[in-house]
Amino acid sequence: MIIAVDASGGEYAPHEVVKGAIKAAKEYEVEIALVGRKEILYVLAGRHMGKLGMSIIDASEVIDLHESPVEAVRGKPDSSIVLGTNLVKDGLASAFVSAGNTGAVLYSALVNLGKIPGVERPAIGCLINVNTTAPVLLIDAGANAECRPTHLAQFARLGTTYIREIFDISSPSIGLLSNGEEEKKGNRLTQETYQLLKTAKLNFIGNIEGQDISAGTTNIIVTDGFTGNIVLKTIEGMSTNWLYSLSQSGQLFSKAYSLPSRALHRDIGMDSWSKRLDYREYGGSCLLGVNGNIIIAHGRSRAKAIKNAIGLAKQTIERNVYQKIKEESYE
Amino acid sequence: MIIAVDASGGEYAPHEVVKGAIKAAKEYEVEIALVGRKEILYVLAGRHMGKLGMSIIDASEVIDLHESPVEAVRGKPDSSIVLGTNLVKDGLASAFVSAGNTGAVLYSALVNLGKIPGVERPAIGCLINVNTTAPVLLIDAGANAECRPTHLAQFARLGTTYIREIFDISSPSIGLLSNGEEEKKGNRLTQETYQLLKTAKLNFIGNIEGQDISAGTTNIIVTDGFTGNIVLKTIEGMSTNWLYSLSQSGQLFSKAYSLPSRALHRDIGMDSWSKRLDYREYGGSCLLGVNGNIIIAHGRSRAKAIKNAIGLAKQTIERNVYQKIKEESYE
Repeated sequence: MIIAVDASGGEYAPHEVVKGAIKAAKEYEVEIALVGRKEILYVLAGRHMGKLGMSIIDASEVIDLHESPVEAVRGKPDSSIVLGTNLVKDGLASAFVSAGNTGAVLYSALVNLGKIPGVERPAIGCLINVNTTAPVLLIDAGANAECRPTHLAQFARLGTTYIREIFDISSPSIGLLSNGEEEKKGNRLTQETYQLLKTAKLNFIGNIEGQDISAGTTNIIVTDGFTGNIVLKTIEGMSTNWLYSLSQSGQLFSKAYSLPSRALHRDIGMDSWSKRLDYREYGGSCLLGVNGNIIIAHGRSRAKAIKNAIGLAKQTIERNVYQKIKEESYE
Repeated sequence: MIIAVDASGGEYAPHEVVKGAIKAAKEYEVEIALVGRKEILYVLAGRHMGKLGMSIIDASEVIDLHESPVEAVRGKPDSSIVLGTNLVKDGLASAFVSAGNTGAVLYSALVNLGKIPGVERPAIGCLINVNTTAPVLLIDAGANAECRPTHLAQFARLGTTYIREIFDISSPSIGLLSNGEEEKKGNRLTQETYQLLKTAKLNFIGNIEGQDISAGTTNIIVTDGFTGNIVLKTIEGMSTNWLYSLSQSGQLFSKAYSLPSRALHRDIGMDSWSKRLDYREYGGSCLLGVNGNIIIAHGRSRAKAIKNAIGLAKQTIERNVYQKIKEESYE
């Protein structure tokens, strides 16, 4: 199993990406193909290559986080994002993991891999683990800012296959994110989507609200990519603040009572809280509906998040998610 | 100054509402008119009436939290919500505070008070104080699930007047909530709204993202009521979980080190955190754009939240917010 990793993508590339890839190669026993500038990658990863079965694919161009996706993908055929996607297309890699420009990864996947027949809009499924032990998948987490009801109904199907295959949940529950529980609540998009989901052969439990996200009311939260992206970043922003406050509080308390700060973390469970809040612990998001396994990691991923994203890629490959979605016949 | 308070509205009505009203009457020196079932209110508040200048307005009907707003308002003319709104309309009260069915309060305000001339859609402005000292107003927090760009542009104006008058900020900054900072990011609604705000005489700083909400990037966050409601409830859900975990952690730690739990709260600043996270500390939301001062409190408000909502009502009256909005000439 070869997993291609974008070594030029993300705020902490290439150093943290390479560190995460090395960790993943050791922990998950997967072969990593680092896609990026070969001179740097040989320096950073050279001595690990033989032993861990890592390889380097030279990508001379880099797509910046703020570049326009369409222009960047068209204008930089030798970028890590385009080359990484093409490794999947040509069967040379079983998955591509990138913390780079999300729009560019999306567009490259659309034009190079193409959509699974019948899927109108591939969507980003993001696992969020704020305060629940059961998996919660937010779909679409940002691929499609403007959606139609049929798109959202397909997101529900894509998410169902994903959660079913990855977590062995035979009939994952689905909630439609809205501004009220009642059927008639919502905007036109959710009202019409509700009618589609009601008659679909899915475990649709109805509308859910914002507070249900952290309560883990359903396994799958269906929403448009505009709302999904805002919700995800709202959670992230709050988590970042809390983590900062936790660390401040811990320091204050340790001083006041002359206790080692690790006591605070260990004994009152702050560590488990940090884990739930820290996006570095998340395994990345999966682009569902394209012909291949594409994993999107957070742009601010450090080594740990990259390692986890590669772990998710391995799971996605092993569980054959892409093939299972294809078998669902969306046409 | 007489402030009418819906004593039949909210999950903890009438007991907590009356308790909050009594506290407010003492602390803010305002005259409260309790609107609700007089038999109960005499029992609960009777002995405070003379001294605190409280009065009771009998409202024999109650609109339930889950009733359809339009039918409820039409069918229950003797409900606390309809009577409370009419007290404002008739000049018998300077403001109406309700923790009851938000949709019914909105509809009653629309039909009984009417819109300020030129305002297309009154909106809910909600102060959120998650992690910032500067005021942050989310508008629309849930009145209008389906919006047009001109509505959002008006929300920006309504919010500007509100923050300017209440907090003495001459030119409050405005961010448009979107899924990316760049001008072209967003859905059709935000893309078109961006163009309107760019040329408006407002302190518009551009698109902001989810993480900017808790960072306090701008004083005003403009969004449609669908997204605003979801964001607000997402924050609330996370805060509730967080408060629960804090209290659990505090108990564990107190046990482990035989410390009084108040030490934890006082010394590591958990109290200030709780305050920032707890909606009981919030002052409620203001319905902006109707002919009168309407304050919407959280449906799960206990005494403290009711007291704070009455405090906000007093401020809104004293700062003449409704009159100031009217002077802005929306026509």
